[in-house]
Amino acid sequence: MLVQFTIFPTDQGESVSGFVASAIKIVEDSGLPYKLGPMSTSIEGEWGEILAVINRCRKELRKRSKRVYIVISVDDREGASGRIEGKIRDVAEKLGHEPKT
Amino acid sequence: MLVQFTIFPTDQGESVSGFVASAIKIVEDSGLPYKLGPMSTSIEGEWGEILAVINRCRKELRKRSKRVYIVISVDDREGASGRIEGKIRDVAEKLGHEPKT
Amino acid sequence: MLVQFTIFPTDQGESVSGFVASAIKIVEDSGLPYKLGPMSTSIEGEWGEILAVINRCRKELRKRSKRVYIVISVDDREGASGRIEGKIRDVAEKLGHEPKT
Amino acid sequence: MLVQFTIFPTDQGESVSGFVASAIKIVEDSGLPYKLGPMSTSIEGEWGEILAVINRCRKELRKRSKRVYIVISVDDREGASGRIEGKIRDVAEKLGHEPKT
Repeated sequence: MLVQFTIFPTDQGESVSGFVASAIKIVEDSGLPYKLGPMSTSIEGEWGEILAVINRCRKELRKRSKRVYIVISVDDREGASGRIEGKIRDVAEKLGHEPKT
Repeated sequence: MLVQFTIFPTDQGESVSGFVASAIKIVEDSGLPYKLGPMSTSIEGEWGEILAVINRCRKELRKRSKRVYIVISVDDREGASGRIEGKIRDVAEKLGHEPKT
Repeated sequence: MLVQFTIFPTDQGESVSGFVASAIKIVEDSGLPYKLGPMSTSIEGEWGEILAVINRCRKELRKRSKRVYIVISVDDREGASGRIEGKIRDVAEKLGHEPKT
Repeated sequence: MLVQFTIFPTDQGESVSGFVASAIKIVEDSGLPYKLGPMSTSIEGEWGEILAVINRCRKELRKRSKRVYIVISVDDREGASGRIEGKIRDVAEKLGHEPKT
């Protein structure tokens, strides 16, 4: 399945890119296919492995902050795989040209 | 921590209240404190127990549909508990009167 | 339509209930039907009027903070009204008993 | 500000890429900077112009469906611009290498 998530501390001031980078490091270390966007990261895999990655990110951020907010969207579709690139490709085909990615 | 989630199938037509009801049944059976709202359900507990409940809801809906969408928001605050009622009470105090709940 | 939203500053430290209360005040002043939950507020109305309320909340919070995060979910269903209570009632009927609200 | 959104009909069966493509077409026609991801699209601009684009997408999808769901995240930061690429660049700098995008 495909999961998109955003994570940040809410008690560490305006700039949080250091925290986001430490979460992305954990995503990379998981070995799961992922794609970083301007406001979220998408990961493909099974429920258990993806949620374990997000939980590691949560614990890492909580080491250095007292309040962490996470928004997660799950698209669980039967028999679907290779969708991090596939979903964008489907839209491009329907559009008839390449969108900005 | 406090977790709010929304879950529904996207391939089962316009009305999905039967699916939502089967998810709420699973939430109730968990024994965790929860509160049903018009567009989402909030649960209080530990990460592992809350995510296990959401995963049971996902599996239940996937038995009868091929595509399920879930949106989850997590508010993980150190040392906080009793917040399903507490957060609303805090806002009521700051407001100086009871909001509609 | 029914819209659920969450709004908070991310640069004002751990406790944000004062900011949330000022947003709820704006929602109340709009006169639109609403319901406050532990992690979000739901409002019923037309797109333009609801989004105008959320924009007023955003501007109010930005007066006192440099970074504001908002999560909005929209359920736009043809011909539907009275759904702040109606959606919960539908689920209760399917469940066969009253859920916690 | 930066806004990420996801939009789809919930009454049109499992595959919705045609609907997503018609929304992306509207985003492109707006002329605003955007970036398509696997599960959402990010747009940069002012509140009014971005929400007008999302509203046009909503109306377009509602022409061919009776129920549309939208999830929107807003990151409103004072004085920030060029962030569709800038936020990813900030994370890359902190990471010390280029993440997958």
